[in-house]
Amino acid sequence: MDESSAPKPIRCRAAVCRAGGEPLQIEEVVVAPPKAYEVRIKIICTSLCHSDVTIWSIKDPAGFPKIFGHEAVGVVESVGEHVEEVSVGDMVLPFCLAHCGDCVDCRSVRSNVCTGVPLGLLDVVMSRDGTSRFTDASGAPVQHFLNVSSFSEYTVVDVTRVVKVAAAMPPEKACLLSCGVSTGVGAAWKAAAVEPKSTVAVFGLGSVGLAVAEGARLQGAGRIIGVDLNPDKFEIGKKFGITDFVNPKDIGERSVSEVVIKEMTGGGADYCFECIGLASLMQDAFQSCRPGWGKTIILGLEMHLSPMSISTLEILQGKSIIGSLLGGIKPKTDIPILMNRYLNKELHLDEFITHEVGFHDINKAFELLMAGKSLRCIIWMDR
Amino acid sequence: MDESSAPKPIRCRAAVCRAGGEPLQIEEVVVAPPKAYEVRIKIICTSLCHSDVTIWSIKDPAGFPKIFGHEAVGVVESVGEHVEEVSVGDMVLPFCLAHCGDCVDCRSVRSNVCTGVPLGLLDVVMSRDGTSRFTDASGAPVQHFLNVSSFSEYTVVDVTRVVKVAAAMPPEKACLLSCGVSTGVGAAWKAAAVEPKSTVAVFGLGSVGLAVAEGARLQGAGRIIGVDLNPDKFEIGKKFGITDFVNPKDIGERSVSEVVIKEMTGGGADYCFECIGLASLMQDAFQSCRPGWGKTIILGLEMHLSPMSISTLEILQGKSIIGSLLGGIKPKTDIPILMNRYLNKELHLDEFITHEVGFHDINKAFELLMAGKSLRCIIWMDR
Ligand SMILES: [Zn+2]
Ligand SMILES: [Zn+2]
Ligand SMILES: [Zn+2]
Ligand SMILES: [Zn+2]
Repeated sequence: MDESSAPKPIRCRAAVCRAGGEPLQIEEVVVAPPKAYEVRIKIICTSLCHSDVTIWSIKDPAGFPKIFGHEAVGVVESVGEHVEEVSVGDMVLPFCLAHCGDCVDCRSVRSNVCTGVPLGLLDVVMSRDGTSRFTDASGAPVQHFLNVSSFSEYTVVDVTRVVKVAAAMPPEKACLLSCGVSTGVGAAWKAAAVEPKSTVAVFGLGSVGLAVAEGARLQGAGRIIGVDLNPDKFEIGKKFGITDFVNPKDIGERSVSEVVIKEMTGGGADYCFECIGLASLMQDAFQSCRPGWGKTIILGLEMHLSPMSISTLEILQGKSIIGSLLGGIKPKTDIPILMNRYLNKELHLDEFITHEVGFHDINKAFELLMAGKSLRCIIWMDR
Repeated sequence: MDESSAPKPIRCRAAVCRAGGEPLQIEEVVVAPPKAYEVRIKIICTSLCHSDVTIWSIKDPAGFPKIFGHEAVGVVESVGEHVEEVSVGDMVLPFCLAHCGDCVDCRSVRSNVCTGVPLGLLDVVMSRDGTSRFTDASGAPVQHFLNVSSFSEYTVVDVTRVVKVAAAMPPEKACLLSCGVSTGVGAAWKAAAVEPKSTVAVFGLGSVGLAVAEGARLQGAGRIIGVDLNPDKFEIGKKFGITDFVNPKDIGERSVSEVVIKEMTGGGADYCFECIGLASLMQDAFQSCRPGWGKTIILGLEMHLSPMSISTLEILQGKSIIGSLLGGIKPKTDIPILMNRYLNKELHLDEFITHEVGFHDINKAFELLMAGKSLRCIIWMDR
């Protein structure tokens, strides 16, 4: 590649977060060319996930300015040295977790925690060289987020963190598979490997919880119990296979675990998924699972970083607790399978999209998600 | 069966515990005939397990007098109604956990927590009718322990809690399979299903921990790291497949989990077994297991009944925690397999027997175990 054809810096719009909890500002930024093993992507659409809101809402010790966003789909605009897997013009989705394909973890069917490329989920720079590809109008660097930073017309992502998207796949549906929905479906499919006819309980029916239900439905679960404080979630949940609903507000003095689940299932659920990130709910889930073989699956960080507390008297009854990163999804092999299942009309994705806005309305996506009004709001870059 | 041939009460010797922490007293007791689904057994030999000592040493809220002992072998002396599985004269071993063969748990390969017969591990009476089969010289009832009470020349056990012993099996070797050794071997074999060539760490090298090592060795583990404060345990452990040894006293400021295991294994062990029952050691074990697929297996109650505390940041890296009752052993099907493996010279049992005493010296078995001098002390009823 001669000098003249080498990728140049791109000047474009990005939604920059200048301070935690404050609205994002659409600003002009400069996106540097991709370095070795990196891909520069022109984002088509992106969506808002709870992890964006969580880090946005706290005083992130890593500070600001930062470009959020990690669920997206785009087109490869240019590639750095040693990038052979994707070419300019390919439709791709970024995934925050790397999949180098080469390390002992990537080669094992048991792990999706790639050790070939640093996990770097808290990094604010590119994982390989420790620098940012973004600068603002003053020339100051702007932080990356979750190795993706999709709230920008262009972004740079490590090649181990991109997955090719089939041309037949509508971009806004592929976008959903870039984090939350894959995590939920993956938790049922990969992390728990839910068995046909089994009983599943899902604690918390946001997008991830509903995606767990959808994954359990695809696995052939016989009964899928949804637990949520919002009664509207039952109707929504039915679309994703929820067969029974428990509202902790409606059961009087009884606890979800000790009474309702055990009354409903005669012993407890085979699989319990905690999809909120609350230590108390993790306990409810654990207590709701069946002695003998019950599995409790933990999908996310406890929101206050509190530890989970386990009674040894309970776990000794043959229960187990499974943790998984992104539902155990190995992005480059598992997401193409999910895309095929969508195209074959097996996997439901359309129902997750409750809202769509143009890029300039990105702050509306935050409002909708925080108010519990949206599952996924698609943000179109060209609208 | 006519009246004259029906089993009669038997007057015999038992080692009765009259108060927690005090030496057992050899007394004359009356052992009632077996009721329906019960078997009366003439004990050949018995051994002392940590659970006996634990409940003996505390002020058991269920009180006293009580007949301890739950690892044993004996011969069926008489049977109650509806007992078809064993006959008078059969050599059997009692097992505290029932195996009815009929309930959903017994029919599943995933569970050993029989729900057909009450678990009753804290019961001080027979599980089906809630009464004792023992009375003392004054005619007062004496409590059962762990559904077995083998510190008596005769005892009564539910038929779902006995396993037939092959005639070729030396009784004192079969005796070991009646609780502790089966639990340890089972934890590696059934609960964890340790994979060939994998790396195993065993925290605490008492009989159960050494049996875990033995089980891991049989499963083909590539490396078995023993962790114990007693340096003598390494030599002993080598007989059971321990390949590496860590003494927490010898590693200076470093913790077992963060430094040594990770230094030794480059990332953590594939399986970590906690064999003491200490919340802090459970954490060490959990932290010592490998992200991606590491499993921590909890074998016993926390000794202060404290909960185990789990960091969600750690478990989300694809770790899991498995609890199992008696190592996941389904007594009637799994213990015969272990007996065969002993007779085929695959499973090491002889090395667990460090001492043998006559029944009148039973208190010596307590002293030896509490002083950490014995693995298993066989107590012969006829010596
Ligand atoms: Zn890798
Ligand atoms: Zn996300
Ligand atoms: Zn059963
Ligand atoms: Zn025992």
